[in-house]
Amino acid sequence: MNKSNLSNITVLFGGTGDLAKRKIFPALYHLQKGGDLPQGFALVAVGRRQKNHQQYREYIYSFMEKEADFTIDKEAWEALSQRIYYLPFHFDDPAGYERLKEFLAVLENIYQTQGNRIYYLAVAPEYFGLIVQQLKVHDMDRKENSWRRVVIEKPFGKDLNSARKLNQIITEVFEEKNIYRIDHYLGKEMLQNIMVIRFTNAFFEPIWNSQYIDNIQISSSEQLGVGTRGEYYDQSGALRDMIQNHMMQLLTLTAMEPPIRLDNQSIRDEKIRVLRSLEELSQKTVFENIVRGQYSAGRIDGKPVKGYREEEGVNPASTTETFVAMKMAVENYRWVGVPFYIRTGKRMPVKSTEIVVEFKRPPEVLYFKEYKNLQPNLLVIGIQPKEGAFLRFNAKKPGTIKEIIPVEMDYCQNCQVEQNSPEAYERLIYDVMRGESTLFTRWDEVEYSWKIVDNIERAWRRKAEEILLYPAGERGPQGAMELLQRDNRKWWNILGG
Amino acid sequence: MNKSNLSNITVLFGGTGDLAKRKIFPALYHLQKGGDLPQGFALVAVGRRQKNHQQYREYIYSFMEKEADFTIDKEAWEALSQRIYYLPFHFDDPAGYERLKEFLAVLENIYQTQGNRIYYLAVAPEYFGLIVQQLKVHDMDRKENSWRRVVIEKPFGKDLNSARKLNQIITEVFEEKNIYRIDHYLGKEMLQNIMVIRFTNAFFEPIWNSQYIDNIQISSSEQLGVGTRGEYYDQSGALRDMIQNHMMQLLTLTAMEPPIRLDNQSIRDEKIRVLRSLEELSQKTVFENIVRGQYSAGRIDGKPVKGYREEEGVNPASTTETFVAMKMAVENYRWVGVPFYIRTGKRMPVKSTEIVVEFKRPPEVLYFKEYKNLQPNLLVIGIQPKEGAFLRFNAKKPGTIKEIIPVEMDYCQNCQVEQNSPEAYERLIYDVMRGESTLFTRWDEVEYSWKIVDNIERAWRRKAEEILLYPAGERGPQGAMELLQRDNRKWWNILGG
Repeated sequence: MNKSNLSNITVLFGGTGDLAKRKIFPALYHLQKGGDLPQGFALVAVGRRQKNHQQYREYIYSFMEKEADFTIDKEAWEALSQRIYYLPFHFDDPAGYERLKEFLAVLENIYQTQGNRIYYLAVAPEYFGLIVQQLKVHDMDRKENSWRRVVIEKPFGKDLNSARKLNQIITEVFEEKNIYRIDHYLGKEMLQNIMVIRFTNAFFEPIWNSQYIDNIQISSSEQLGVGTRGEYYDQSGALRDMIQNHMMQLLTLTAMEPPIRLDNQSIRDEKIRVLRSLEELSQKTVFENIVRGQYSAGRIDGKPVKGYREEEGVNPASTTETFVAMKMAVENYRWVGVPFYIRTGKRMPVKSTEIVVEFKRPPEVLYFKEYKNLQPNLLVIGIQPKEGAFLRFNAKKPGTIKEIIPVEMDYCQNCQVEQNSPEAYERLIYDVMRGESTLFTRWDEVEYSWKIVDNIERAWRRKAEEILLYPAGERGPQGAMELLQRDNRKWWNILGG
Repeated sequence: MNKSNLSNITVLFGGTGDLAKRKIFPALYHLQKGGDLPQGFALVAVGRRQKNHQQYREYIYSFMEKEADFTIDKEAWEALSQRIYYLPFHFDDPAGYERLKEFLAVLENIYQTQGNRIYYLAVAPEYFGLIVQQLKVHDMDRKENSWRRVVIEKPFGKDLNSARKLNQIITEVFEEKNIYRIDHYLGKEMLQNIMVIRFTNAFFEPIWNSQYIDNIQISSSEQLGVGTRGEYYDQSGALRDMIQNHMMQLLTLTAMEPPIRLDNQSIRDEKIRVLRSLEELSQKTVFENIVRGQYSAGRIDGKPVKGYREEEGVNPASTTETFVAMKMAVENYRWVGVPFYIRTGKRMPVKSTEIVVEFKRPPEVLYFKEYKNLQPNLLVIGIQPKEGAFLRFNAKKPGTIKEIIPVEMDYCQNCQVEQNSPEAYERLIYDVMRGESTLFTRWDEVEYSWKIVDNIERAWRRKAEEILLYPAGERGPQGAMELLQRDNRKWWNILGG
């Protein structure tokens, strides 16, 4: 790959934050180690704490040494470390931007980065607007013959209205094509694999439609509770925290039509078409088809854990949902009549994100007439922690005359010890450098998702107190089971079974 | 299962032969051990050697003890052994049949077998006619309110003409429904599984046709040479020994339409329809589409082995084929344009019987436009020694931006130590007892297969000397590779790779 035009200086706002330490620097380190960082590259971290460059480098190193799940190769770290700089200032301090500007000019000369820059906003959302405006005021937002890109972390707004306002501020400074909104799920190996599996294999695409598929289930379970994020989470909830972004991405990749080409526009256009095809929910259907839950005290792996309302930072009378199960219809030619069941929750018995495609039964003749308990075929795409594909089909039980049982084929891409999939951030940061935006959310994706979520929120607000409790360690409230039982179906728990 | 009407006395002609010792008694032993032999059961072995009952029992036991690949459970053996009897006489000796008749009357009284009998002809083919005629002469072929079945081992004739004659003799004595022609391949677990896999799974049947399948390859490789069977084999050859029976069975099960019902008539009707759909070969197409080979000296597993013409019992100028590769067309609606490539050979590098279904490539857009070396999807059904199903499909190579590689899913039903599939004979003998003939070849199947084989033989006889030699340890002569190269295809060696 021609790496010449990847050269850039990355300005990392929020340099002492959790995201920088836990995700961004490990990703940069791995890119460095794998030889994927361009020659012309430097990083300037911006934070409020007072440190000099060397102190900052040591600060990052000692954090990673303690927390990272890999052993740091000294040589690779040194090669990265000497390209890391630190500049302390408050995001609302104009003088800080002036100093930044001067410092960048010096570094650009040293590193020959041709004026290319990434502004990475790893900060609390309230600073997004402020920082981009300051970049414009100080004339750092664009430069002839150079690229300037801005990376925005989630959440992108907290509803449609705030997202629109935020987007307006950002687009006054940066063009859409230079805005990289991160949904880190899109960087995960298996999300990138969904399209490859669907469109490079003769067996999947022909049967990927309502004629052969009975229903699709997308589940994302966490074992953890809200942890130290109680205060933030209580203002957000599972709908905003998981459904609006990650689950919608899984849905669109699973349901989308083959794009015209493999470029970012064609792919994202198809994803948007899925969101536009989603059934519009009336207040009635919200209550019928969407289940809200909140965990009460229970047990995880045999150990007692607190209920949500006892968590630190959470309102003891909170009606914020920690679990959502929903039934959605994708109202287009391909998917008519195929329900998409989506669920996500905290304090589930296991951690697992998976897509289960349940196929229709063959006609009620032959084996399906003579054998009453034949199981449907399942294709499962494991997103995390198990990454892979898994097929359940029927075969004759060996040694029997007429017994037919479900058997399994399995392709696990991270099950062997040496196969450690790269973290999402590695891929995402590399893609920003090379100007590849497919794995980032375009504004219209964000906008459509918020519309859907706002619509649900509006209905919920009328009956906020009607939230179903479920003990920690169970798979959500009974209502989530009933949602499928009503349709004569059941949730499959395959990889997280 | 109601076992009452399974009661029978089995008369085993050829009781001291190889087949009896190697296959039939081990199968009976396993049926006994598994509790599948009926209460009312006894076996009378007939052979030419002089032995009494006890000597015969010991003779069988000591053979199995030495040769069988399982440890004999004494209790199970005893339970079987005391029901085994031996009667020595020559098959052409009428007095022998009289003694047999009297002895059977005595045993029938003891074992309460209601006059039901299986005549199992585990003898050289020249005795088939003689024995059934003698059974008729001595009035042992039928009895009111009892069933009398005859089991015929292969080969059923050596060409269409001899098969017809043989069939005429047998059907003068037994009705077609009481004739069980053994093709032991049909008793193999995975052959029984082909229909189950095809017709109980939503993903296979919809794509099992010329729209999605590019070609089908059926391969059966042996590592062994002719061994001690040289004299017999030199009169037969791979076409008669493997293609006429086993390979045709694999072909029909793979290509057949879903039967109307799961009964033996409906299933065998569909198999016949495949044979009737086979392209009729002109002399020209025989030479174009069928490759004959014979092994010369070479190496197997690194050890030197003789050429076919040096084998014991083989004519040193023999033109008998030990390898056949052929391209066949199934000219019906489902399979138009999909070649079936069939090959079988001795002295191949590995032992493996497998069906490879190669799917068409998706259209040349998207990934198939951008990536030139994407591999086609394969579904492999392993018959022996590995039994199972195996899927090769494309996925993103983890950790890469855009690399797509073939990955594999595997369902192996006999790979774990405790999973030992029963031998074909166990199932087949049990099926004879319960009167289930699906896994046996009906006369019209035999007839059609011989027609096809005779047609090929006729062409070959004109150029008998044109046989391609291949060194032992290779996958047949170069011509076999060219047969597919010509069509821009290649043989897949997946399980026997």
